[in-house]
This record gives sequence, C-alpha cells and structure tokens, in this order.
Amino acid sequence: MARKLRMGMIGGSLDAFIGAVHRRGAALDGEIDLVCGAFSSNPEKSKATGEALYLPENRVYGSFEEMILKEKELPEGERMDFVSIVTPNHVHFPAAKMALENGFHVVCDKPVTLTMEEAKELKVVIEKTGLIFCLTHNYTSYPMVKEARHLIKTGQLGDIRKIIVEYPQGWLIDLVEASGNKQASWRTDPARSGAAGAMGDIGTHAENMIEYVTGLHITELCADLTIYVEGRLLDDDGNVLIHYNNGAKGILHASQICNGEENDFNFRIYGTKAGIQWHQMEPNTLILKARNEPAKYLRTGVGNLSRHAQVHSRQPAGHPEGYVETFASVYRNFAFAVRALWEGKEVDPDFDFPGIDEGIMGMAFINNVLASAKSEGKWTKFVV
Amino acid sequence: MARKLRMGMIGGSLDAFIGAVHRRGAALDGEIDLVCGAFSSNPEKSKATGEALYLPENRVYGSFEEMILKEKELPEGERMDFVSIVTPNHVHFPAAKMALENGFHVVCDKPVTLTMEEAKELKVVIEKTGLIFCLTHNYTSYPMVKEARHLIKTGQLGDIRKIIVEYPQGWLIDLVEASGNKQASWRTDPARSGAAGAMGDIGTHAENMIEYVTGLHITELCADLTIYVEGRLLDDDGNVLIHYNNGAKGILHASQICNGEENDFNFRIYGTKAGIQWHQMEPNTLILKARNEPAKYLRTGVGNLSRHAQVHSRQPAGHPEGYVETFASVYRNFAFAVRALWEGKEVDPDFDFPGIDEGIMGMAFINNVLASAKSEGKWTKFVV
Amino acid sequence: MARKLRMGMIGGSLDAFIGAVHRRGAALDGEIDLVCGAFSSNPEKSKATGEALYLPENRVYGSFEEMILKEKELPEGERMDFVSIVTPNHVHFPAAKMALENGFHVVCDKPVTLTMEEAKELKVVIEKTGLIFCLTHNYTSYPMVKEARHLIKTGQLGDIRKIIVEYPQGWLIDLVEASGNKQASWRTDPARSGAAGAMGDIGTHAENMIEYVTGLHITELCADLTIYVEGRLLDDDGNVLIHYNNGAKGILHASQICNGEENDFNFRIYGTKAGIQWHQMEPNTLILKARNEPAKYLRTGVGNLSRHAQVHSRQPAGHPEGYVETFASVYRNFAFAVRALWEGKEVDPDFDFPGIDEGIMGMAFINNVLASAKSEGKWTKFVV
Amino acid sequence: MARKLRMGMIGGSLDAFIGAVHRRGAALDGEIDLVCGAFSSNPEKSKATGEALYLPENRVYGSFEEMILKEKELPEGERMDFVSIVTPNHVHFPAAKMALENGFHVVCDKPVTLTMEEAKELKVVIEKTGLIFCLTHNYTSYPMVKEARHLIKTGQLGDIRKIIVEYPQGWLIDLVEASGNKQASWRTDPARSGAAGAMGDIGTHAENMIEYVTGLHITELCADLTIYVEGRLLDDDGNVLIHYNNGAKGILHASQICNGEENDFNFRIYGTKAGIQWHQMEPNTLILKARNEPAKYLRTGVGNLSRHAQVHSRQPAGHPEGYVETFASVYRNFAFAVRALWEGKEVDPDFDFPGIDEGIMGMAFINNVLASAKSEGKWTKFVV
Repeated sequence: MARKLRMGMIGGSLDAFIGAVHRRGAALDGEIDLVCGAFSSNPEKSKATGEALYLPENRVYGSFEEMILKEKELPEGERMDFVSIVTPNHVHFPAAKMALENGFHVVCDKPVTLTMEEAKELKVVIEKTGLIFCLTHNYTSYPMVKEARHLIKTGQLGDIRKIIVEYPQGWLIDLVEASGNKQASWRTDPARSGAAGAMGDIGTHAENMIEYVTGLHITELCADLTIYVEGRLLDDDGNVLIHYNNGAKGILHASQICNGEENDFNFRIYGTKAGIQWHQMEPNTLILKARNEPAKYLRTGVGNLSRHAQVHSRQPAGHPEGYVETFASVYRNFAFAVRALWEGKEVDPDFDFPGIDEGIMGMAFINNVLASAKSEGKWTKFVV
Repeated sequence: MARKLRMGMIGGSLDAFIGAVHRRGAALDGEIDLVCGAFSSNPEKSKATGEALYLPENRVYGSFEEMILKEKELPEGERMDFVSIVTPNHVHFPAAKMALENGFHVVCDKPVTLTMEEAKELKVVIEKTGLIFCLTHNYTSYPMVKEARHLIKTGQLGDIRKIIVEYPQGWLIDLVEASGNKQASWRTDPARSGAAGAMGDIGTHAENMIEYVTGLHITELCADLTIYVEGRLLDDDGNVLIHYNNGAKGILHASQICNGEENDFNFRIYGTKAGIQWHQMEPNTLILKARNEPAKYLRTGVGNLSRHAQVHSRQPAGHPEGYVETFASVYRNFAFAVRALWEGKEVDPDFDFPGIDEGIMGMAFINNVLASAKSEGKWTKFVV
Repeated sequence: MARKLRMGMIGGSLDAFIGAVHRRGAALDGEIDLVCGAFSSNPEKSKATGEALYLPENRVYGSFEEMILKEKELPEGERMDFVSIVTPNHVHFPAAKMALENGFHVVCDKPVTLTMEEAKELKVVIEKTGLIFCLTHNYTSYPMVKEARHLIKTGQLGDIRKIIVEYPQGWLIDLVEASGNKQASWRTDPARSGAAGAMGDIGTHAENMIEYVTGLHITELCADLTIYVEGRLLDDDGNVLIHYNNGAKGILHASQICNGEENDFNFRIYGTKAGIQWHQMEPNTLILKARNEPAKYLRTGVGNLSRHAQVHSRQPAGHPEGYVETFASVYRNFAFAVRALWEGKEVDPDFDFPGIDEGIMGMAFINNVLASAKSEGKWTKFVV
Repeated sequence: MARKLRMGMIGGSLDAFIGAVHRRGAALDGEIDLVCGAFSSNPEKSKATGEALYLPENRVYGSFEEMILKEKELPEGERMDFVSIVTPNHVHFPAAKMALENGFHVVCDKPVTLTMEEAKELKVVIEKTGLIFCLTHNYTSYPMVKEARHLIKTGQLGDIRKIIVEYPQGWLIDLVEASGNKQASWRTDPARSGAAGAMGDIGTHAENMIEYVTGLHITELCADLTIYVEGRLLDDDGNVLIHYNNGAKGILHASQICNGEENDFNFRIYGTKAGIQWHQMEPNTLILKARNEPAKYLRTGVGNLSRHAQVHSRQPAGHPEGYVETFASVYRNFAFAVRALWEGKEVDPDFDFPGIDEGIMGMAFINNVLASAKSEGKWTKFVV
C-alpha cells in the first residue's frame, strides 16, 4: 500500500530559521512524515528539538553521522527514506555525501556546498548511487514563476533582450553578527558560509531564477562587490553586469544593506514581443506588458494559466499563497520523484525541482563573481 | 510524553475545496495528525480519499456516525481526539452534536449551523460536555488583523466612528450552479447552505471580522439584498448600512457578482485619532493613517508588532504568508487549548480562536439581514 | 482673426483655494486670458489679488455687480467674454444670473446654487439668453473617466449591476471651522454652503460621476447622514444605498471624517461582461476586469483608447497628468463651445462639459438625500 | 508696475511634443506670456503654429535669427524678455548663444548642446553677459524630489551607501525612426541628437536627478551600452556601474527597448539611517524606509514637508500633480530669478532651477559613458 515518505532532518534546531520552514513545507501536502532528526551538533539542543516536535526519543540523534548509521539499521518499514539538510553551508557536503552513500535520498538547502570542488564531487556521488538529490532553490516554485517560464518557453515574449534581477534586503546594515544574531553570524563567516556573503546567500537565488525562467546562461560578467559594514568579512552588496548566451544583457544586484528593504527579490525581463515583471513580495501577480497595450495582471488561480503554474498553486483566486508553499512544492515534487523511482514510473515534467546541476551553477556564479570583483578587466568569461 | 493531536475529518473528499485547506492548515505546524475520516456520504469517494491521504483502510468510514461510534471504541492511545467538520452547512449541526456527545472536541467550518435554533442548541451541548468547539472563521487569524485589533484595543485609533467592510467576489456572475460546479451548487441551495447566499457564505466573515477587530456590536441595520442571476435561489449580493453600539456607523457589502473580483475582502476603520486599512489579498500589510501624517505601512515580521500579531506570523519580513497559515493558526490555537485542557493549564489569551459565540452571532447576522431586506422600515433592531 | 477668450473672475482672492485652480486650468491650454476680476467682496483684497496677477488696476473691481456693469460698457474688442464664478456657493446664483442677463457666458463652480429653486430659475435664464453655462464638475474630465464612459456606452461591461462610488476625505475630523480655516469655515456654514455639508461638497461629485460614466439615473435611495464632530452644523459623513433606473443597485458614501484619507474619490462598476475600477488619486489608470481573465490596466496615453479619452490627455504615456488638467479640459471645451457659437459651427461632442442640467441633478441629489436621512421609511423616491 | 515676462519660443511647432509642454508649463502660473515665436525652420509651419496660438502675424518668424534680431529692435515695453529653446539638440547652442549675445535670457531644453566644447563655450557667454540661463531638467522639480533632497541634506538618511536609478522606456523596441515618427527620428540621429541615444535623452535625466538629490558626484563608472534594434545608429540601452565621491556605489540604467514600459523613471537611495524610493509615474509619493520600522509614505500636500517641497506643490493633498507642473515650476522659478535681477533682489534659494553647470555635467556624463563603453578596462575615471 502507498505510504508517506519518511524524512530525517539534519540541522534545524528550535532557534534556527530555515529548519522550521522546511518542516512546514514538507508537512503541508501530506506526502511526508518527519520521523527522526539530528537537529544540532549540540546533543541537548537536538534532544529538546525532538521533544518539541513530538518525536520518540530513540529517533533523535546527536549527530548526522549517528543518525545515518542507526537509521540504516532499522527495518525497511520504519527507517527514514531521505534526509533533509538544513544546516549552515559547510555541513551540506559531508552530510549529503554520507547520506547518499548509505542509501538515503537527499534534500539539501542552498548553496549546495562550500566549494565548487565539493559540488562536483557530490555530483559524482549522486550519479553513482542513482539516488535523488533535491536542492531547495525554493523561489522558482512560485506558480507565477512557473508561468513566467512558460510564457518565455512558448515564445510569448519574443527574443529576450534585457534582464534585470534584484535581491535587496536590509537586515545587515550594521554589524549584527557581532551581537549574537545567529542567522547573521554564520552567514557572514567564511568558514561556515563560503567565499561569498550576499552573493552566495541571495545572489545565487537571483542567478538561479533567471536561468530557470529564461533558459539562458551567463557567458560573461562584470562585478562590483562591496563590504559596507566595517568589521564584516564577506560582501554585503554586489552589482553585476551580465551578458547571456543569446545576446541578452542584464543587471543582477543583491544586497543586505538596502536599509528598510525586507526581501524584495524581483525580476523584469524584456523581449521583442513583450515584457514581464514579478515581485516575490507579491508573488501571486505576474505583470505582462507590451508597447501600446494595456498591461495584463496574470494572477495565481485566475483563468488559463499553464498546467505548470496550476499544479504549483493550491488555492482559488484571491486566497494568497506565499513562501511556505514554495518549500511545499519542492518537497512534494521531490516526493513524487522518489515515488516514481520506487514504482518504476516516469516523472511528470511539470513537477520539477532543482538538483545538483543548479547547485554547481550557483557555485560557478559565486566563483565568477568573486573573480570579476578582483579583476581590473571589464568582462570576466563565465567558467563552470 | 507529549504527542500530536489526532484528527478525524468529516467531509473533505478529493473534489471538495475546503477540506484540503483544513488538512493543510492542520498539518502545517506539526501539532496534529490526520488519523481517520468520513470524507463523503458516498462510501466509494470516502475510501478513495482515504487512500490518497495514505490512511489505513480501517480508519476510513462511510459516514460520520460510523466514524464517531467506531473511533469511540478504539483504545485511548489510538482513537481520534477531535473531529474536523468540513461538509456543506446542513451537516454541521448533527455532526458536531454527535461528536461532542461522544466525547470528541470539534473544529467546524462556518457558518456554524443552518439555523439559529441549531446554533443555540449546539451551545448548550458544548457547555454541558465541557469540550472545546472551534469555528474556522479563519480570516481573523492573519497577523495584521491581530495587529489591527491590538491598535484599536490600546486606543491608538481613538473612538471609532466609521467602518467600511467589503467582501466582493465575482465567481457567481452567471448560473454556474446549473452546470455542475460543486462549490456553487451547494452554496446556492437553501437546503444545504441555509437561508442566505452571499450574506451567509461571505457576509458572515465580514461581520465577524469587524466585531473581532473593533470589539463593537451591531445595534441596528438596513439591508438591501439582491438575486442578480436569474434562476438563483439565494442572494448573490447585499449592501447593508450598520449602526454600532458605540455610535459608530458603517457599511458592509458582500457580493458574488462583482465581475472580475477574486476574493477582495477588506476593511477600513476610522477613529478620532487615526484610521486603518487592510486587504485580505495583500494580508501582510496594515496601513495606519492620520491627518497630516505620512501613512505608515505596518508589515508582518517588521519591527515592534504586538505579541498577538507576532505569534500568528511564521516567517521573517518579506517572506509572504497567506491563506493556509490562517487555518494553521486556528488549528494550532485549538490544539493548544485542547492540550491546556489535558494538562489543566490556562490558555494563553494571545492564542485565541473563534467558537460557538461567534457562530451564534453569525446566525444572528444572517437572520437580521434577511429580516431587514424584507422590511419597509429603514432600521431593523439587531436581535440575537 | 481668431483670438483668445477673455475671462473675468468672480471670487478667487489670494487666500482662496479653488480660484487659483480655475486660473491655472483656464491658462493651461492657451485658449483663455484672464483680463479682469472681482476677486473679493473686500475691495482691498480684490485689489491686492489683481496686482499679484499683473492685471491693470482699472480692470480690478470691488464687486461682481460693478465688474459686470463696467465691463459691459467697454468696447467689444476689450471687454470680457465670460465670467468664472469661484465664490462660496451662496454667490453662485446672483452672480451667474446677472452675468447672463448682461450678455456674458458663465463658468461656475459646483454645486450650482444654494437651492433647487435657484437652480431651476437659472436654467430659465440660460435658455432665454442662449448663452453658454458651464459647471465645473471637473472630475469627469479625466481621460480615464472618459474611457470608462466609452467602455460602458459601447457595451463592453454588459448590463450594469452594481455600482460602488466612494469619496472619503479626512480633513474635517475636528472642528477646524472654529479655528479660522477659511475652506472649512464656509463649507460648514448653511448660509454659504447650502443645506448639505459633505453630501453637497463632495457627494454631488460622486453622484455626477456615476450618472456621467454609466448614463443611469437614481430612482430611489436610502441615506444615513451623520454629524460626527460636535458643534458642526452640517453633515460630515453620509452612507447611501441607491437603486438605478436599469435595476442596478449601489452604494455611495462620502465623508470628511475618514481620518488620514486625502481625497480618495473612486468608483467600481460591475456589469455582466466585465467590471471597472478607477481612483482619482491615481487617475491615469483604469482597471478592467472580468472573471477568469487577467485584469487589464488601461493607461492614459497607451494604445487604442477612445478618441473621447485621447482628446482629454495632453502627454505621452507615463508622464503623469493630474487635477489641474481636469479644470483645463473643462475650460478648453467651454472655450471651444463659445467659439463654435461665435462661428456658427457645431460643437464636437467629444469636447463635452457639464452644464445646468448636471447642476439641477446635483441639487436634487442633495434634496433627496436630506429627505431620506429624515425619513423612517427605507426607500425615498428620487424627485428632481 | 509689475508685469508678466514675455517669452519668444524657438522650435515647438504643432507636430512637436515638447514645445506644447513648455508652453503649458510657462502659462500655468501666470508669470509668463508667450508673445512671439520662430516655431519651425519651415516658415509655413511656423506661421500655422503662430496662428493656432493666437499670436499676431508680425510676431511669428521664419528663423530664430530673424526673431532675435527683429525683437531686439522692438521697444522695451513690447519686445520679448527671453527665449525658450525647444528644438532638437543641435540647434540649442547657436540659438542660445545668439539670444544671450543679443541681451535675451534663455530657457533651453536638455541636453544643453551637441558637444562638451559647445557647452563650455556657452558657459563663457552666459558669464560674460550676466544673463540668466535655465536648463529644463524638469524632473527635479517634483515636490517629492525636493523633499528627497531635503531629507538627505538634513542627514535623515545617514551616510549614503547605495544608489539605484532607473529610466526604462519601451517606445523604441523597433525601428520606428524609419517609419516617420518625428520624435524617434531626430532622437536617433547623431547629427541632431549628439553622440548618445538613450544615454543622452534619458540617461542624463537619471544622472542629473541623483546628483541633485544626493549632492554627490560620480568619480568613476563602468558602462555597457547596446544598440538592440538593427539599423539604429545610437545606443537604445545602457547599464552603468557607478562609484560616487563619498564611497557610495550604484547602478544607473536607461533604456528605450524595455517593452511595455512607459516612462518609469525612478530611484532608490539607501543610507546608514534610512532609505528612500520614488517613482516618476506616481510622483506624489516618496517612500521612506528603515530597518524594523513601518515604511512611511510621504505625500505631496500632507503634513510637515520641507518648505522646498511645499513651494513646488500647488494643490491640497490627494489632488494629483504631474508632469506639466514640473515645467511650470522651472519656468516660474526662472521668472522669479529674472524678476529678482530686474529688481536687484536676492533669489530665494528654495526656488531653484538647473542651469549651465548641470548642462555641462550632462555632457560629461555622455562623454564618460561613451568612453567607458569602448574601454576594456573596468573603471573609467569621470572627467568633466
């Protein structure tokens, strides 16, 4: 008989931010049960988290290594099916690798690893094991992002010419990492976050979004990175000029010092036939514009959206959907893929999710942006 | 050891709308497990729904009566703790009454019953059993609705003078109930929906919202109800002038023939010191205005919101929260209340949810509006 | 040779609000020259205003009577062609009557007179003299209001069902008229403003707008008027239910105690085929909605608007047009009508402006609303 | 006795766009009379334009040279006081120079000249003659732009860190200049427009805006210019990274191929204390944001704006002001400066307008952007 997938979580103790998001996302569609966890490298915190989540004591572990090994020994009808890795970045690689090598599918937060070398090694492991690896670049799961991709894919924008993608935040306008903000503290620490700050944390979302929506690839870029806040170790702002492989040009900027901005991720894409505009903070609207025509406000739940958009929407029109649903969609689609593997069926391509290739592209983006930032030449060729 | 609450669902087969919303809401915060269901009066549909939800066959029932009786016989560690009633309105009363009388707490969709008589009888049952009854007037669970209530309660608007509440929808602009639309079909059928159409379905949300946010009560009203679509049996539009018990005056209108409107529930409340404005379709913003001052856009997740608002928000600023979270909050707060009952503790008043009194007020609203609509006098005294 | 029209102004001294608006509106399109004025019943103020406006001393008068009589004696090539009356309401009738009877066309601010009797008498005078009378219900001159009228006239909304028109302001939340605010002082004084307060000042704009845009007429109404501010003599708030002659129903509310609202005049009109929405504070956008279709944002200057809209727009797309242009359009269209009269030509119907009939309808609206407010019956038949 | 200023217009025949804008702007505040014109190099067109504007035949000229010489010979009480130059760019320099050298003040459209050499020579002429030269960078005249400057000047944003200025338009998405569009035709012709296309036409507005609002200067930039439309001779799109003299960094992009964009000029400026956001298409709102505080929507006409903002606003709150008022303010402030010169008084600094220095800076911007676009080095030092 069909059953829910069983998830073991790595990271995500009670005081973390993204762990709870993943748990809610995984729970929303009723496809997945959380059955165990190694929620913290601090065993006390891990235990307290497990209790708060109503997990049996014997399924709460003190380390991901322990969890993977012990779960592996449980009977098939009981042990977890996959791990969800929601730790700071430096743990992604060892945890994912070990899970895969012990037979568990993996859902992993982004960026995929600390370095490109790790990312590429991880790809080899994934291919060798034949297991499913899902990277939670969640923002591409919004229904109107799917619709944007559909519009471009079906030619409704014509040839793409100009692309503006922005990711302004303002929460790091001063040295909050020095005053015990846990989120800020690891995100600005090269040892746990990687070589880039804002560019890694949110710039990679912007890069991933544009490649997903347009299907284009970056060929060269010119980056201007800054550390505005004294004492900070990684970039908190970056402006990048970009050339794409079809001749389109664009701008990508991401920042954590845009005072007063919440999380205003957005894009505008202009083609020869039309342009589109989307804002993450009002995600259920996609504006479609063309010269001398009234702008059309496409809305989640309204009218003849593509099937791709429709299967990523859960409510009728006017009942707002938001951030947690993007995680839910990633987890649901991942669950469908695991189920398809179990049942030897094809995966429905409209139920897509990001994987290791998107992770590698994100690492390449970080590396190329950093290289360009140090270069005196205008254009840095994009190398993966 | 602490454990999740166990939910049995009444109604909510796969082709229903609101059942899935309740299931997602109940699942989101990890406090509740769906363990059984009588999803349809059609046993085949109930069974198919149970399978799709990965429920064991023996916990899927052909009727709510069967479920209540059989679950009651299960051992304490296994049987459901409460029922969630998500059927058309005419089933609410018998299902809730039987559940309560057999020892199960109840979550019930609104309006609470078909008639005021049933609502008042239900209140007697609730009081007699001492069990917890929760009515899913979900819209008051938005964080910024909590903040609106807080602003008014703490006097930041001064004395309330004028209240405008609107609930325009456009999905019933023609006789969709004649062409097999399940949602439209029962909502426009007096036998299953009750004596009012739009006024019952969405007008009661508007009435409940204003009483919740302002703490005021209606003293008299003047209603103009219409059936615009030929062949329809219940009002699809209503405009109501209202007088409140503090001298405030206002307008409430609700409609299902506002062509092109999705679900634009909104209110504006004006006091001697300031005014506020909120729109359900952009629920994370509450606009606070006063003469000769810049309008302030209060936002979910930003700054010093009241604790009441904060505990109903799950994400940091700029990560949109929506409709499903309102159901999640109602279910979570209900679960906390049940748990408090189990543990003999006080309920934290910031974790509130609507109950039978709100249900009775909704029935009174329907009755008074219908009476006024038939009256040639201007003002109909509001009788509960 | 063609020449500009010569305007004499009655009222509009330097400390008035609306006089400067009229002067700018009249000047904008280069069709009209201000040549003389009786700017105040206080001759010193009138003189000072004339000087500030660079008028020759001998064309600045101490009273409108003096101006009309003296200008009449000037040679044809020099004397004014028309008067513009921008005084408090009680002066409208005597000034307009005398101007007409002495051969001058008239532009007059609204409401047209203090009473219906005056309004009807004025109509007789206008018809007898054959001169042109223009009432500055300026808001119907916005290009997107013209487009709204065009959409309805050409059937693009289908049959009109529901009409919501709102006019909330917040500047009279307290007794500003007691502390020397000139605008507030006459507008709340029955002797100078007439029998209604908010309903006369802005409610008539709302009534005029809906009749203009839809072509419908009110058949009965139910009004709830309030004086919220202690010591005030006229209504500062009103809510009205309305029935129209085609069976449409609606709500009109106007208020000057909506704390924090600036001048948020707006309407929503729903028909069987589509609905529209327009806000005066963002006047260059008209939203056209229909069920299951993306909303279309029609914009001033964009695409295939009706000629009626186009001739009321002066800028290319994206160059905002505003309030002063609505007065400019009224004055320009009035000037074209005078010129057509001079030249014995037909008036182009797309260059329309309000006249005495709109003024009479406004007085009727005031009278019927006041009657209904006092009535205990629900519906008051609308009498003109 | 005080009198209006007398304006002679150069360019601006009936089929031009910007001439009518200037005429309306000059007329709006009643400080200026149009008395003569050389509206076209085609004498027939000039004559027809003069007639349509009700000018006497003998004040309509066939060339600006004729106008300047003939007007000079008129008696002082009759001849024009200044010229307004609204021709394509290549005429600006000769017309302005000749006017100044013959004793007439000058209002001139931007960019000031075709080349930097001309601009610098013009500055010498201006200084030598002591006459007043006004450049119509109109966009800085919006009241909320004045307020933005005030906020920054008074330290309310703290130290400026990041500046994003955008000027997207979409009207040149194809080769409209080949099909008789007059506006497109000269703006894309190097001989009449200068060395830059979009960067000269609208990029200079963006550069001028930021320098005006922040008081900062560009120290180096990195430009990526593109001609997207085949057959076009000048850039129709440009993306520029910028470093400012206080260490701030930013992005400027301007485009005429952003399909569906009207005229969406906007800026966002982030400082250590707060950030601001302004959009030309909704010019009466300035959004002020800071971390963990509700955003404040500052509005024209509302509350305690700076005097600088207030004297550039003409209406009470909620009565929208727009594009034509920006020209009116430039003309009015210019008129006040001329009048102050006549009367030997000081100019009130709140009534400011752009002049030759802003023109020179605009030419420098064009030159530096073009130099950077050709360079393979990342940063081009900004040279004036």
